Amino acid sequence: MPVTSAAWHLVRRPNGEVVDDDVALVEHELDDPGPGEVLVRNTWLSVDPYMRGRMNDAKSYVAPFALDEPMDGGAVGVVEQVGPDVEGLAVGDTVLHGLGWRERAVLPGRRTQRVDVELAPPQAYLGALGMPGLTAYAGLLDVAAMQEGDVVFVSAAAGAVGSLVCQIARLKGASQVIGSAGGPAKTQWLLDELGVTHALDYKAAPIRQQLREVAPEGIDVYFDNVGGDHLEAAIGALRLHGRAALCGAVSAYNATEPPPGPRNLVRLVQNRLTLRGFLVGDHADARPRFLTDMAGWLAEGKITWRETVTEGIGSAPEAFRSLLSGGNTGKMLVRLEPDS
Amino acid sequence: MPVTSAAWHLVRRPNGEVVDDDVALVEHELDDPGPGEVLVRNTWLSVDPYMRGRMNDAKSYVAPFALDEPMDGGAVGVVEQVGPDVEGLAVGDTVLHGLGWRERAVLPGRRTQRVDVELAPPQAYLGALGMPGLTAYAGLLDVAAMQEGDVVFVSAAAGAVGSLVCQIARLKGASQVIGSAGGPAKTQWLLDELGVTHALDYKAAPIRQQLREVAPEGIDVYFDNVGGDHLEAAIGALRLHGRAALCGAVSAYNATEPPPGPRNLVRLVQNRLTLRGFLVGDHADARPRFLTDMAGWLAEGKITWRETVTEGIGSAPEAFRSLLSGGNTGKMLVRLEPDS
Repeated sequence: MPVTSAAWHLVRRPNGEVVDDDVALVEHELDDPGPGEVLVRNTWLSVDPYMRGRMNDAKSYVAPFALDEPMDGGAVGVVEQVGPDVEGLAVGDTVLHGLGWRERAVLPGRRTQRVDVELAPPQAYLGALGMPGLTAYAGLLDVAAMQEGDVVFVSAAAGAVGSLVCQIARLKGASQVIGSAGGPAKTQWLLDELGVTHALDYKAAPIRQQLREVAPEGIDVYFDNVGGDHLEAAIGALRLHGRAALCGAVSAYNATEPPPGPRNLVRLVQNRLTLRGFLVGDHADARPRFLTDMAGWLAEGKITWRETVTEGIGSAPEAFRSLLSGGNTGKMLVRLEPDS
Repeated sequence: MPVTSAAWHLVRRPNGEVVDDDVALVEHELDDPGPGEVLVRNTWLSVDPYMRGRMNDAKSYVAPFALDEPMDGGAVGVVEQVGPDVEGLAVGDTVLHGLGWRERAVLPGRRTQRVDVELAPPQAYLGALGMPGLTAYAGLLDVAAMQEGDVVFVSAAAGAVGSLVCQIARLKGASQVIGSAGGPAKTQWLLDELGVTHALDYKAAPIRQQLREVAPEGIDVYFDNVGGDHLEAAIGALRLHGRAALCGAVSAYNATEPPPGPRNLVRLVQNRLTLRGFLVGDHADARPRFLTDMAGWLAEGKITWRETVTEGIGSAPEAFRSLLSGGNTGKMLVRLEPDS
């Protein structure tokens, strides 16, 4: 019995911000799951900054989205049908998979991952327990090699990844955690619930000046989610043998011209600094440590997060636009069913 | 019996290029060497790009030169007098030490290093067997972690450090060595004697374009001596998990405004690149390996170098100016005695 699924297609490469005419919601008829396959009804969709790069035609670390086909991305859903020869999955299971931006998907069972909804709500596997969590963990501890006692600076600290970096830094013994975010509501959250030492509102004054005020002796680690003036300020503040993990540059994702680069790279030589770009996909080796630590912290109530949620498949492009302009606090999600 | 020594003082902080009024040659009367001290008559002085930073008053990795005192720097000389309680040094020994920019120096014997003039001529200890050699070796092999088969790009490849990087890369199994330098005489030297695969004349066409032509598949390692457009071009060419060792930014040393930074740092994330600044002083651990390898290569005739030499203590500022404007091929030196 075929089912239908509405899916977001990219129909035109965006120029700058994604506009309505760049995407289209298209109804698909899905076949029954074949051997090894399952049908999943998505309940939560993830929107993430890296998707903006996939909307361009440029060669990048992941292939561009094809035009006139469903986009993909992280999603959590419930197994509705199980085809022949599928092991370890049953109707009703909650699974994490990569065919988001749509209501339903038929895909091989081995390309899904069953999640433990006793440990955390389903959508946490798109956040703290998922890709953003591992990104924060591996970027901070492996790429930037944070050590106990380090002074750590995190940009987009109220975002899905940044908010976890702040907390992991604190839990792993950073002497100070400095987070930047846009606006007083976000900075208040950083101070009140994430336990940062200093929260900087980058909209209130130049970030370089604020960073110098709260860290006159400099910083040891910078976790970069935004690039631009934050990166330049951080390079100016990094002290001897400091390390920056470059996770993304959300300030530039919608840019149509290459942004100016930091003018102070000579400090890399002077202070023997390391800038290292990374992608979570290269850090599968950190996953067991991450899951052990994170499950422990969750059980002890030591990790918190927020979600910014839009409702219904129709809201996905708006959720994505909002994400890139800082409209979210914590993880940006699209909920497809009111009670999920 | 007191001796005299002419020494170059910095008398004013330069603004841009060093001009005659920034420095003064001052006659000093030296005391006899005291306990543990020796008197050295310098025969060769080193001028090095890092000295430009020391002429500024800015906090940097080495203290600024004091005004109205002799500047210092690498020098080789002959021991003329030995004070009481000095072990292991005799009159006539050739030594390496740090009190350059002057004719003679009195200093503790333990702050000199006797050199083997059978293995190489004295001034080689200011070049291939000295600080530039260790800089090239540690920067390429430890900081940039060059592996056999890598495609390596080196800027200022006709300079003291760069010319050694090219040869060490080749000797350690780089699949291609690409060197850039200014002008056909230098690039010809790179091709004929240093054994590079491609020599790029950065004055002839944009370096980005030339690099793309000779390395359409990209590069794995970049050894940066100049910064600026070379660094941006290299970041654009570095492929997956590429590494850049940042040794200096000679293009900016005389700059009075901070130079524009590379506009393509987003590639650090896309290709998981590492940019790492370093100073040779942090790599003493590489010295034994370096000396073993380099002595072997010298004995087998596998390493070559050139020197650009000015004559007499009066020529030191001109040698330094020429160095910063690319007037040298290979190591820039000041010879204080015609037959040394």
